[in-house]
Amino acid sequence: VRCVSTPALIALDWGTTSLRAYLLDESGQVCDHQASPLGITRLATGGFSATLDGVIGRWRAAHPGLTIVASGMVGSRAGWVEAPYLPCPVSLESLAASLVDVPYHDGVVQIVPGLAWHQRGEADVMRGEETQVLGALSDVATATDALFVLPGTHSKWVRTSGVTLAEFVTYPTGEMYELLLTKSTLGQLHEDGGDLALHDQAGFARGLDRGFRHAGDSLGKLFGVRARALLGDIKATDVAAYLSGLLIGSELRDAFVRFVPPAKAHPPIGIIADPALAQAYAAAFALAEVACFLVRPDAAARGIAAIAGNSAGNSAGTGA
Amino acid sequence: VRCVSTPALIALDWGTTSLRAYLLDESGQVCDHQASPLGITRLATGGFSATLDGVIGRWRAAHPGLTIVASGMVGSRAGWVEAPYLPCPVSLESLAASLVDVPYHDGVVQIVPGLAWHQRGEADVMRGEETQVLGALSDVATATDALFVLPGTHSKWVRTSGVTLAEFVTYPTGEMYELLLTKSTLGQLHEDGGDLALHDQAGFARGLDRGFRHAGDSLGKLFGVRARALLGDIKATDVAAYLSGLLIGSELRDAFVRFVPPAKAHPPIGIIADPALAQAYAAAFALAEVACFLVRPDAAARGIAAIAGNSAGNSAGTGA
Repeated sequence: VRCVSTPALIALDWGTTSLRAYLLDESGQVCDHQASPLGITRLATGGFSATLDGVIGRWRAAHPGLTIVASGMVGSRAGWVEAPYLPCPVSLESLAASLVDVPYHDGVVQIVPGLAWHQRGEADVMRGEETQVLGALSDVATATDALFVLPGTHSKWVRTSGVTLAEFVTYPTGEMYELLLTKSTLGQLHEDGGDLALHDQAGFARGLDRGFRHAGDSLGKLFGVRARALLGDIKATDVAAYLSGLLIGSELRDAFVRFVPPAKAHPPIGIIADPALAQAYAAAFALAEVACFLVRPDAAARGIAAIAGNSAGNSAGTGA
Repeated sequence: VRCVSTPALIALDWGTTSLRAYLLDESGQVCDHQASPLGITRLATGGFSATLDGVIGRWRAAHPGLTIVASGMVGSRAGWVEAPYLPCPVSLESLAASLVDVPYHDGVVQIVPGLAWHQRGEADVMRGEETQVLGALSDVATATDALFVLPGTHSKWVRTSGVTLAEFVTYPTGEMYELLLTKSTLGQLHEDGGDLALHDQAGFARGLDRGFRHAGDSLGKLFGVRARALLGDIKATDVAAYLSGLLIGSELRDAFVRFVPPAKAHPPIGIIADPALAQAYAAAFALAEVACFLVRPDAAARGIAAIAGNSAGNSAGTGA
């Protein structure tokens, strides 16, 4: 335990395939942390409660009475308890006032709800990313609007206004990449491109250019991956990087239309991701000539600290 | 054998998963036909030659000296012989002058090459559809430009000018539908919608509206399938029809930008497909308020007859 002051909070970033636990003091400083592969689809025998015992039991024994707050898919229909989606836009305060308690030993775990919106035949949902974005806000001036991207299987773009989550949209870029590369005829001509990261390979910039700079729907650009490989215009070892660039470029093109008015100066876009994925998106932003910055790691822990700080007093019997 | 006049030509529409064979007289009238599942990935023992013997042996025995012309994936790298792609645009005459012979018994099978184009970082290929479109031209006035759609795994849009294939583009709509419905998290919430055809189900019109009428890239619309299902806005039994409508709508939206200038009156668009798929696209065109017509079946046979008619004299030793 590294922090000087007394631990006060356990923050859980509990997703589908991983559980990250943080021990925080009252100022939100991380005292200790653990990463586990026990996501909600890979629980230990005994379910949620027993899984959590194995990860945070030592902290609870050493520091009785800690508040425990969890965000992510743990609050989904397939999770520990369903924390219903709040309608977007949502402020930090209203999110903090809407935590859902699930019994844990003689206390509770407080679960952060997800966000949803639905209008004009469109709809979207998020769960976990809202907490990361609130944590990332500690890196920016909240006096102005900010824009974040959380790349991944389901890439999220989130616009904030002060400490309010104002608007968001999801692109299934990572899932499409995996599906197309491994299960489709478009990826059939692919060969392993070697040790370089995808975004450092020659095909990436070409795919990004195609996706980002050229008009037309990505559905109409996808077959070009196969066509160019068949015609020898893309090497088999470049197919994966080209496809990655094409999909990320298409994502950026659409997101910019939604969130980045061309005539208006825009503050740098915050990237919230593990280092490898953050690097790929940073490379994409550089090729697109748009400023970005990398949000410090463990944004979820800082987000939960902010939520817990605003929730204190709203909820009675926590921890113990 | 149904035709009155003498059989002169065997036309083969030989794709990945099927082989359709037609016995034609000199006027292009179909005397007899057979459908076989022996596509180039499902050949009989003995390969291409033995497979063909089993399907057309009876016709060859009864009518020695028939010209045999094949189109489709049989001319691909994985086919009987690779017939290199011709650069688009291509006229009927130049296609007919570019048949590639492969030895068959004491004669040859003449294989129709595919088409390719490559410009401004875009590329596309087709193989087999060029022949169907040339066959479909017998249904339209060739004095003006015409536009055809060939829906399927890889949906093709082809613009013709006279008897020249002027321009085309591919949308992997059918492949994406299958992948997304059966392999993705977006299709996870899907339940069987019952006996109605997809385009007759309630979700189809809603998905089509979303894909066709709303701005934005299809990549950004796809996650909405999952979000709307999670929020109860689409029933699980409507997910498949909604996804089908969304993808077809996105295809139409992009293809119209490319091929259908909004200010200009456009002749009806020809649909070349098996009846079920043709009905789905006809329903999509109706919802999109664009005129279309269904091309008569067996367009490939008519296309091969037109190609063979223009090729006569160009090639020497055909048939037996």
